Amino acid sequence: MTRAALIQQIKTKHSFLCVGLDTDLTKIPEHLLDNEDPIFSFNKAIIEATADLCVAYKPNIAFYESYGMRGWESLRKTWEALPKDCFSIADAKRGDIGNTSKMYASAFFDQQNSGMSFDSITIAPYMGKDSVTPFLDFEGKWAIVLALTSNPGSLDFQNFTNTSGKQLFEEVLDKVNTWGSDEQIMYVVGATRGEGFIKIREHAPDHFLLVPGVGAQGGSLEDVCKYGMNKDCGLLVNSTRGIIYASNGKDFAERAREEALILQKEMEQQLMLHGVI
Amino acid sequence: MTRAALIQQIKTKHSFLCVGLDTDLTKIPEHLLDNEDPIFSFNKAIIEATADLCVAYKPNIAFYESYGMRGWESLRKTWEALPKDCFSIADAKRGDIGNTSKMYASAFFDQQNSGMSFDSITIAPYMGKDSVTPFLDFEGKWAIVLALTSNPGSLDFQNFTNTSGKQLFEEVLDKVNTWGSDEQIMYVVGATRGEGFIKIREHAPDHFLLVPGVGAQGGSLEDVCKYGMNKDCGLLVNSTRGIIYASNGKDFAERAREEALILQKEMEQQLMLHGVI
Repeated sequence: MTRAALIQQIKTKHSFLCVGLDTDLTKIPEHLLDNEDPIFSFNKAIIEATADLCVAYKPNIAFYESYGMRGWESLRKTWEALPKDCFSIADAKRGDIGNTSKMYASAFFDQQNSGMSFDSITIAPYMGKDSVTPFLDFEGKWAIVLALTSNPGSLDFQNFTNTSGKQLFEEVLDKVNTWGSDEQIMYVVGATRGEGFIKIREHAPDHFLLVPGVGAQGGSLEDVCKYGMNKDCGLLVNSTRGIIYASNGKDFAERAREEALILQKEMEQQLMLHGVI
Repeated sequence: MTRAALIQQIKTKHSFLCVGLDTDLTKIPEHLLDNEDPIFSFNKAIIEATADLCVAYKPNIAFYESYGMRGWESLRKTWEALPKDCFSIADAKRGDIGNTSKMYASAFFDQQNSGMSFDSITIAPYMGKDSVTPFLDFEGKWAIVLALTSNPGSLDFQNFTNTSGKQLFEEVLDKVNTWGSDEQIMYVVGATRGEGFIKIREHAPDHFLLVPGVGAQGGSLEDVCKYGMNKDCGLLVNSTRGIIYASNGKDFAERAREEALILQKEMEQQLMLHGVI
């Protein structure tokens, strides 16, 4: 999906919601466990209940990989079930030397090889340029590079500061900016420190940011928008647990829709407030 | 495998060789392509030809993942075929927030879930403590954390330097050292800059180091040992392309053995020179 098409979806749906699919057999409703592929059944119901309220889906690859081959098949079927008007994110945090990153890109982008072709993949930048650029060689695909995350350990290294007062995440933004355009690179920026977005926007004013941490991790949507939204919106805000595990009863899909609708309405307000729609 | 058992293997086999299994359908001998599972057939032959000359095997997960579900099955069968006296490394470069890293750990360590139980996994440290420690919660398993890699982009961020003159990879070593012991943590240190090991050993004198970059990437085994070997050896030196792709004819396994034997003999000399055996 192109940048222009993504912006169009945001303006059409009045939403910049990304629904995380961290599907865990120990958390989904018990009545699904008798199904042939409970993970896929759960995802399909969540997708059908939320597709008109969000612009992106983000399966967390670890949750599928942990079930080995059958998890990988659930992932492939989930990818196949994603609506074509939604941006798809393989949340995989991959990154390795050039020839290996090329293989990871093939795993998530090349349908002929792996059976899947996501729009984007999340990338860890520690190994530098040749670990990122192979993902950019795929026409129309995106690399979403970790910049400033929202987890407890995020500041162990990401705010390591050089003699000019520049923090590691700023160096990541500046360097990665030179490896590709804002039509193929996004950044992961956690929501738990709204004001952190000021610095992010100094280095990456136009890029889309994938923002986890709203909801269960405690971030405020209002702050994220205040400091992070740009004229094209420039945000994909992810919510996972608050939506997909809103209920573990037979009403899980309806409850997921209700929670997604609450977020979509808040997002609509923010889009109007900041003049995007 | 425990640290003591690994050291015992090194002393028994007079080797600290790790064979990388980056198995690529476009590079393996053509006559294998008719087999039901060419990747597994290739790996099995390589393992049988080299098992007495090396102490570790390192499948590069990207190469399996790129073939989707069937690649994942080749990986599982390969894991099953690894000799029990060899240390097994899932070279996956994973790392994410706590609950997600736990799932990745389950994918590579928990046989009941995924069908596989490697001794260790490689980890990218960018997201900090909670992205690493879930791997350490598995009794007897190892996290092999990226410190200083050998690829062209390695210095894009790894030598980012703070006001005290400390580089990012040193900060990684110092912090990760506090998260677990040298019985459960190793570091990835590239071979292309032999003298780089002096600084590594200042921060991690006792840890085992996984060393890629000898051979195809141009590192010198002699330099690596001069600056990196400790009293327990403390090194697992990986070679991939030089061994597994020594020939793409019917003699590929014999040729792989010949190349592994050359390295094992050089390693034996180094182990004697440094008084380990």
